[in-house]
Amino acid sequence: MQLSPRQQQIVAIVKRSGPITSQQIAEELNLTRAALRPDLAVLTMSGILEARPRVGYFLSSKPSQALVAEEIKKIKVGDVKGLPRVIRASASVYDAIVNMFIEDVGTLMVVDEEGHLEGVLSRKDLLKAAIGGGDLQKMPASVVMTRMPNIICTTPEESVLTAARKIIEHEVDALPVVRPVDGQGKKLEVVGRLTKTTITRLFVELGEGGR
Amino acid sequence: MQLSPRQQQIVAIVKRSGPITSQQIAEELNLTRAALRPDLAVLTMSGILEARPRVGYFLSSKPSQALVAEEIKKIKVGDVKGLPRVIRASASVYDAIVNMFIEDVGTLMVVDEEGHLEGVLSRKDLLKAAIGGGDLQKMPASVVMTRMPNIICTTPEESVLTAARKIIEHEVDALPVVRPVDGQGKKLEVVGRLTKTTITRLFVELGEGGR
Repeated sequence: MQLSPRQQQIVAIVKRSGPITSQQIAEELNLTRAALRPDLAVLTMSGILEARPRVGYFLSSKPSQALVAEEIKKIKVGDVKGLPRVIRASASVYDAIVNMFIEDVGTLMVVDEEGHLEGVLSRKDLLKAAIGGGDLQKMPASVVMTRMPNIICTTPEESVLTAARKIIEHEVDALPVVRPVDGQGKKLEVVGRLTKTTITRLFVELGEGGR
Repeated sequence: MQLSPRQQQIVAIVKRSGPITSQQIAEELNLTRAALRPDLAVLTMSGILEARPRVGYFLSSKPSQALVAEEIKKIKVGDVKGLPRVIRASASVYDAIVNMFIEDVGTLMVVDEEGHLEGVLSRKDLLKAAIGGGDLQKMPASVVMTRMPNIICTTPEESVLTAARKIIEHEVDALPVVRPVDGQGKKLEVVGRLTKTTITRLFVELGEGGR
């Protein structure tokens, strides 16, 4: 959520003069109380302001947290995504593991001849195959990968917050960042990857004030 | 860094009326310019306010980022750490992999008879062992683990920011959270683990304003 200039003004007034009634805020801004009502509703619902009858509006005890949330919600997947590392579904599990070490990644995207997303291979998938006892050089990656349409994806336009929530809820290490190449959204071009490492790095940048 | 009430007032005034001179801020707060100087110095040095001669103070173009950084720096490892999952160094690589699946973790802590940290086992270590071609049921975990004193650790008192920086710089998935049990800090009790998942979950909580 992005505060409008007027909402920011209201927060500044409440920060300075709270507890303050909506009537007093309205006077300071040369507005009617009715005109102010939607903004006050947004600010209280989002947890930035709190209101008590006969007292007025005051800053929530968690104002900074609300500002942090506001900042985090602005960041898009496209701002932080990494390059995708891809292999073909016909590659062996052994080759996939070697590839993972060479590229130094924890997740590989599996694509078809046209570069469209077919599957995702995690370290967990490959470990499971490795203790299965088969011949890793002969087993194709397609046997152990998670395949379409069961892959959890994100897009460059999605917020990193939403993407991070998908990572936690679906218990995966990485999401392919995709763009649909047909009308039905069945064919997906892989344009990047978003991982727990991406988010940890972003967390460090935010903590250093560097974004 | 935690802003004092007066510093917060100054930020609110500058947010509302900036660019504004220190004289004007002082008048609004019924203070002398001299009394205000230390607070203004703190606020400009921390990057929250900027000052231009003959113009006055205005909010830095990155004010919210500074506040985000401030909030993130407050969070300690002890506030968010998870439970450690441990095995013994004598366990086989096969048992370690099975354990990892049962516990649903990506990193196991290896401890001695007294519960002191001896090593760390990642999915990467186990995958490397798996393609090595040996008998995983006979190979002890101690052969493939990262061992003391090469383990990157954190403590409950350390900030999550510092711990996250270690994860990125040393390219590991998880840190054991430890407490020294002797004077030299050579024997470490494992009291938790901090992983990229922990940080991703924390990122989601911060983005939802829920911490």
